[in-house]
Amino acid sequence: MNFTIEKSIEILERTPEVLEAMLQNISVEWTENNEGGETWSAFDVLGHLVHGEKTDWIPRVEIILSDRQDKTFEPFERFAQFEESKGKTLPELLDEFKRLRKKNIDVLRSKKLTGKNLEEKGVHPAFGEVTLAQLLATWTVHDLDHVAQISRVMAKQYKEEVGPWIDYLRILNL
Amino acid sequence: MNFTIEKSIEILERTPEVLEAMLQNISVEWTENNEGGETWSAFDVLGHLVHGEKTDWIPRVEIILSDRQDKTFEPFERFAQFEESKGKTLPELLDEFKRLRKKNIDVLRSKKLTGKNLEEKGVHPAFGEVTLAQLLATWTVHDLDHVAQISRVMAKQYKEEVGPWIDYLRILNL
Repeated sequence: MNFTIEKSIEILERTPEVLEAMLQNISVEWTENNEGGETWSAFDVLGHLVHGEKTDWIPRVEIILSDRQDKTFEPFERFAQFEESKGKTLPELLDEFKRLRKKNIDVLRSKKLTGKNLEEKGVHPAFGEVTLAQLLATWTVHDLDHVAQISRVMAKQYKEEVGPWIDYLRILNL
Repeated sequence: MNFTIEKSIEILERTPEVLEAMLQNISVEWTENNEGGETWSAFDVLGHLVHGEKTDWIPRVEIILSDRQDKTFEPFERFAQFEESKGKTLPELLDEFKRLRKKNIDVLRSKKLTGKNLEEKGVHPAFGEVTLAQLLATWTVHDLDHVAQISRVMAKQYKEEVGPWIDYLRILNL
């Protein structure tokens, strides 16, 4: 399947609703437990998504489209949510994510990106040149990755409870 | 986290809404493509979930609670959806799933299961004795497994489009 902005937005605009359907008003045992050790809970993942809306995706789009000499992205802070989410409730994070995402999609649409824009490049601090299309495809896949992660983290809360079915449930063995 | 019927229902009742948020009115390229070979598309997974509502979960609950001598479950037909979904549209499957799931949760609630009921046993054709609690926990995790699968199948449609980011997106490497 080839990249298009509209197909990407189809995913990006759905994610806040998907997370709301999964997490709103559910018991905290589903959302505050993680997979053990330093792994993330559903609450932590949501905080990470909020942080990305503020500092990652659209700021990188702006860098690529700018006329700066140096188009190197700021490294993304993968653990910022542990500080930023402190004192917030899950419904607050869901609302914040929904609001920021809507605004960011509006910004994206307002740029009326052309095929030529999509080939423009920035520099990832770890692996070098990437195109705007690759950045937007990654934003899209990143959403789906974290929806799958949240499903997995929640599923694992019942790891002991499924008994011998454990071998049939791929998600419990990832 | 310990099994309870109410925490299980929290997941079970959300799944139709989650799938609706993910899939309703999205481009067919997201829902009809699979991961290659004999793998399933999002549409196929949805058909599998519909089939489970009809033939798997509640019928197995009934077998466990019955006073039959032989409480061996019927094997679950994992490929039935390829026939059953033929000619149906994705919105039709979403509606059918929502309706069947609601009915099945009503049936589950109407049984007013006790702690003693939850320890009653049936026989899985492949691995033997299982309790009612294990069956209900598996129904719950099975939902989350397939939500994660749908996310993964959709994400993989952009596998080539993310360029060098592929190594950072776990979901593309499963």
